[in-house]
Amino acid sequence: MTLDNRSTSQRRNLTDEALIQEVLESFSHAESPRFQAIMQALIRHLHDFLREVNLTECEWHQAITFLTNTGQISTEKRQEFILLSDTLGASMQVIGMNNKKADGATEATVFGPFYVKDSPHYQNGDDIANGAPGDPCFVEGSVCALDGSPIPGALIEIWQADEDGLYDVQKPSLSAAAARGQLLTDAEGRFYFRTVSPEPYPIPSDGPVGDLLRAARRSPMRPAHIHFRIQAAGYETVTTHVFKAGDPYIDSDAVFGVKDSLIAQFHRVEHGHAPDGTRLSEPFWTMQYDFVLMPSATHER
Amino acid sequence: MTLDNRSTSQRRNLTDEALIQEVLESFSHAESPRFQAIMQALIRHLHDFLREVNLTECEWHQAITFLTNTGQISTEKRQEFILLSDTLGASMQVIGMNNKKADGATEATVFGPFYVKDSPHYQNGDDIANGAPGDPCFVEGSVCALDGSPIPGALIEIWQADEDGLYDVQKPSLSAAAARGQLLTDAEGRFYFRTVSPEPYPIPSDGPVGDLLRAARRSPMRPAHIHFRIQAAGYETVTTHVFKAGDPYIDSDAVFGVKDSLIAQFHRVEHGHAPDGTRLSEPFWTMQYDFVLMPSATHER
Repeated sequence: MTLDNRSTSQRRNLTDEALIQEVLESFSHAESPRFQAIMQALIRHLHDFLREVNLTECEWHQAITFLTNTGQISTEKRQEFILLSDTLGASMQVIGMNNKKADGATEATVFGPFYVKDSPHYQNGDDIANGAPGDPCFVEGSVCALDGSPIPGALIEIWQADEDGLYDVQKPSLSAAAARGQLLTDAEGRFYFRTVSPEPYPIPSDGPVGDLLRAARRSPMRPAHIHFRIQAAGYETVTTHVFKAGDPYIDSDAVFGVKDSLIAQFHRVEHGHAPDGTRLSEPFWTMQYDFVLMPSATHER
Repeated sequence: MTLDNRSTSQRRNLTDEALIQEVLESFSHAESPRFQAIMQALIRHLHDFLREVNLTECEWHQAITFLTNTGQISTEKRQEFILLSDTLGASMQVIGMNNKKADGATEATVFGPFYVKDSPHYQNGDDIANGAPGDPCFVEGSVCALDGSPIPGALIEIWQADEDGLYDVQKPSLSAAAARGQLLTDAEGRFYFRTVSPEPYPIPSDGPVGDLLRAARRSPMRPAHIHFRIQAAGYETVTTHVFKAGDPYIDSDAVFGVKDSLIAQFHRVEHGHAPDGTRLSEPFWTMQYDFVLMPSATHER
């Protein structure tokens, strides 16, 4: 390791601009130019922020505690820093910069804090609800390329909240995935499955991000949606939601994620034959959405 | 709670500047104007940073992981977010803004990640090392006001690394405090105690901040110092260090904390009578430092 004390004969009595310059300099020997550029921009904005608001020592301690608690409440099933990024609009900013879509391609939206890797495998036609409470909802659609050609074998991951407004991972009593799974498009690029109708829900408010929203008097509500992540060889992966048209929170999403192109009609049927041929005496919903993938630039993400 | 959806009829299809404006707006109903101002400045700098470096989704995930790990490695005895703030110079920036000292008053420096509340109580003349390894070191000094008048009964908290370069809390085998304690100045505002000579040490490098420094090829070393925190009724609390003159790292402190006024001579004595009257056949050190407190502005901090 190359130490940087060869160039720091002035690292003493540092305040204000001189301090900032010395901190910037301390990152000038980084191996990666990209890491150096990111850290130096971060340092400039961090110090400018501190000086702009004249942060007090008490506020600094509160910030340290807030960040520590945000890390400590996070688990494999709950990601409070993602929630923080989402509620500050940072997630949508990053998604917007990195997912410039051609006309017609499916837009991306927030990843969210409730994704779980290696969800259960299902076949088209299966019920992925796996006991999640809610009205039955029959989803179907297709995955195709910009020119309309179908993409067979595309991997579709699905996750959503149930009628309690909760994801499976928010229910400590559950040991198996519910309203969460993955399946592949068929030879015609089509997919279809049964689940439950998603409901609007508040983002988790029992942690530091909940405290932040309360202090801001911000609504924690998200409009009803189903998460989709779609991957196919030769195409850009898209991570997105399909939102339920008419949701009362469609224009006040706590994480700024709604796009017109991602809103779909969920049709309610009082009773009768469901799309899978079964006859239901209870009310159910149908929803149809077609995804359009961009070709990958140079390599699959 | 007042929800903010009354004013968010446009919260859809948000990108770039429109997204930033909407996030700023979401904090416009905060109860505390100070909280609102801090959050809005934070949001502007956060989004400007993201756009300036064009952060990728992969880098965003790395940042989420870094922040989460920084929270999760922290305990009651180790504060990795403070260490992060220290190594980015943020701590010294906040300290500098909040501790403008009159000429002659003792300057502040970083709090550091190893402070522990409620350390053992000692009397003047005691050995606070409590078994910490190192050459004996006899410290003495005074606490006085700007006009030179002594401050009796000032509370002095002391903590430091031993000759292994480790604080007690970094040694899992230790159950009691070592080279850490608190005592009061006597009727003449004087204090004196025995400890061990501090040694330079690397800040903890087994966590996320260590990874950050390695990526930057930055030295993790801090020059030898003893931490002092001094409180007295009617005076501003000062949190500072006394550094060892001549330390090889005095001009390359990993956390930017060195000030000329905080450097003291540590005198080495090969053997003989120590300041407390005992005769030592081993080498020992003496150090003398006088602290000068500012009157408190309106109330004690």
